Amino acid sequence: MKYIDGGVCAPQGFAAAGVHCGFRKNKTKKDLALIVSQTDCSAAAVYTTNKVKGAPIAVTRSNLADGHARAILCNSGNANTCAPGGKELARNVCAAAAQHLGIKDTDIVVASTGVIGKALSLDPFLLGIPQAVNALSADGGSAAAEAILTTDKAVKEVAVSFELGGKKCVIGAIAKGSGMVHPNMATVLSFLTTDAAISPAMLQEAFRADIEDSYNQISIDGETSTNDMAVILANGLAGNALISEKGPDFDIFCQALHLVTDFLAREIAKDGEGASKTLLCQVSHAATKELARKISRSIVSSSLVKTAIFGEDANWGRILCAIGYTPGDFSVENVDIQLTSARGRITVCKGSHHQDFDEVEAAAILSEDEIQILVDLHDGDFDACAFGCDMTYDYITINGAYRK
Amino acid sequence: MKYIDGGVCAPQGFAAAGVHCGFRKNKTKKDLALIVSQTDCSAAAVYTTNKVKGAPIAVTRSNLADGHARAILCNSGNANTCAPGGKELARNVCAAAAQHLGIKDTDIVVASTGVIGKALSLDPFLLGIPQAVNALSADGGSAAAEAILTTDKAVKEVAVSFELGGKKCVIGAIAKGSGMVHPNMATVLSFLTTDAAISPAMLQEAFRADIEDSYNQISIDGETSTNDMAVILANGLAGNALISEKGPDFDIFCQALHLVTDFLAREIAKDGEGASKTLLCQVSHAATKELARKISRSIVSSSLVKTAIFGEDANWGRILCAIGYTPGDFSVENVDIQLTSARGRITVCKGSHHQDFDEVEAAAILSEDEIQILVDLHDGDFDACAFGCDMTYDYITINGAYRK
Repeated sequence: MKYIDGGVCAPQGFAAAGVHCGFRKNKTKKDLALIVSQTDCSAAAVYTTNKVKGAPIAVTRSNLADGHARAILCNSGNANTCAPGGKELARNVCAAAAQHLGIKDTDIVVASTGVIGKALSLDPFLLGIPQAVNALSADGGSAAAEAILTTDKAVKEVAVSFELGGKKCVIGAIAKGSGMVHPNMATVLSFLTTDAAISPAMLQEAFRADIEDSYNQISIDGETSTNDMAVILANGLAGNALISEKGPDFDIFCQALHLVTDFLAREIAKDGEGASKTLLCQVSHAATKELARKISRSIVSSSLVKTAIFGEDANWGRILCAIGYTPGDFSVENVDIQLTSARGRITVCKGSHHQDFDEVEAAAILSEDEIQILVDLHDGDFDACAFGCDMTYDYITINGAYRK
Repeated sequence: MKYIDGGVCAPQGFAAAGVHCGFRKNKTKKDLALIVSQTDCSAAAVYTTNKVKGAPIAVTRSNLADGHARAILCNSGNANTCAPGGKELARNVCAAAAQHLGIKDTDIVVASTGVIGKALSLDPFLLGIPQAVNALSADGGSAAAEAILTTDKAVKEVAVSFELGGKKCVIGAIAKGSGMVHPNMATVLSFLTTDAAISPAMLQEAFRADIEDSYNQISIDGETSTNDMAVILANGLAGNALISEKGPDFDIFCQALHLVTDFLAREIAKDGEGASKTLLCQVSHAATKELARKISRSIVSSSLVKTAIFGEDANWGRILCAIGYTPGDFSVENVDIQLTSARGRITVCKGSHHQDFDEVEAAAILSEDEIQILVDLHDGDFDACAFGCDMTYDYITINGAYRK
């Protein structure tokens, strides 16, 4: 099992494209992504729990009700959320794409990201869909990855190869961040492809479980988006025996899946809006898995922790404060906190009390680009990691003038 | 019932002082506040729900167990939280103050605010307590208000006069903000005094109910402090008939109390760390009072709403997004959103959809210092207001180098 080059086109039988067709003013920015499988796929998806949902979510959910799909179409620049006629538009988009691809409307996953509340026209889709269909190729994964970005600075794609019963399988994926990121039972936008053969039910089970420790553990700014969606398509072209129940093949598939989502979760954290540093938090020895997840997420979500990391200040009281206000019944009597980076590791709090440390050494550790906060609760057997970033002046700049 | 000049010394029989004695490096900053009543008081208090608590909270809670107190002593510059020997120190502080004042140790409310996790020495207290006792006067309210501040830019004090059975009564108060402000079942630091006669039980009932719509509705940065504490002392010198049960006098007292806390909640929001604008959010027609409170607080807590307000950008989709991710079961199908300030009022969302509006007019409204977001859910009979501020570059500056 290993990381390989490529993204959504790394598995057999997938082609992709990314084009500019007018959702964004800047003509150098691609704004429509298309990913297509040669053959029918098992499909699984998770969606935002925000009660305000983008119109594409309802249409995709309906299209995936049968557990099958063949293509993913996603525009950036406009979220198609709280805009008049949004669902009808999303259905018309599926119809137009299906016609050009020669597949069924209901085999299309449709997604949108961008400004909320602005009416979206069918025209750019009618222009862009034929362009994207013509541009489809096995080299188009990066173009698709580029087309789904909003304020992201970097393309996010990854692929992992692994074996099932002697057959080489691949999972590839792309994702976008970069603001309004605090997934809740779902994620930012992420599209995954695989040539492994797996039933829709097992694919959904693997995917649902996986995101609890990957996408759901990211927070850039505490904002759960209206358009979060993660979808995986599995076309079975690798030729492995169909995974239709739990067992060793299912476990291998889940491990490979986690390599993909863990990689992208870190990439999303690294490219958080305005981020100058990646902030990872590992909580260990919590009383339950859920508490470990919640506490680690509380720490990476804290504005005061994030600004202290930006300022390279080992102000660990803020970390303990964020632990303390995490909802739930747990002990804060014996908490150890360490800060670590490529420059070393330092203990700043022991048994919930101040531990003398060298401020110069702490500042050197915090001067790196990736900082880890290690919290040991000494209160149980469960661990979890959360992914975030520091809070900087650029976050204010980006979001003070987002529509301008 | 009306606002009058003054703060904690506006009610009869209270004296106060604020001195510098070395908790803070800057000698021009007062760092020890003392408030004393001539006679015994009924006392009520609410405390932070953060599981990590400052040592003074345990000592004050124990001292107030009998419902009585006479003095409040508070230092700034060090929170006495997660520091070795913190509770013993807080008890020694009470003993020293009690000795100088000639009262019982257990009649002292002790509080601290500032950096978490730094050991606190008794020495500055032994220096400052006699100074403060000597400086006690009916003109000392503002000095006390100044001494409890941390990163606040403005002193926060207020007084309200009202009548009970023909007797003039007064409630006075001070508070501090200005970061780590997202009270939960409690507040920032706030000390209230009154000469009204009211039993400890009724005082606690009035106070506990009041903060649900005042201090608990403030959010500066989503951070529930470890040292939040609000205390009210009532010495009865106004000579009104003791309030010992619900009735017209209790209602009048509650109204006056709310004028005090509502005023201070707005002042705390206005002086939030780095704030350039006050952000008030009024949610109406929610299905329950609790939902109205939670939704309004969700909006003023949203980083994306706060940065949009800073950028004077009417990006209302972020407001709807924050409504949508508020926990709870409620309808988001028919939401109206208006933005209002001294410059006018504009509807930006009607029935959860975009409403055409003049961007120039919207920008003019958002150019003011106090912005109100009015949300109508059309889903019930309950209203609530929340108090916050915009998010600016200065928040990052202040908190990137808090300990420097």
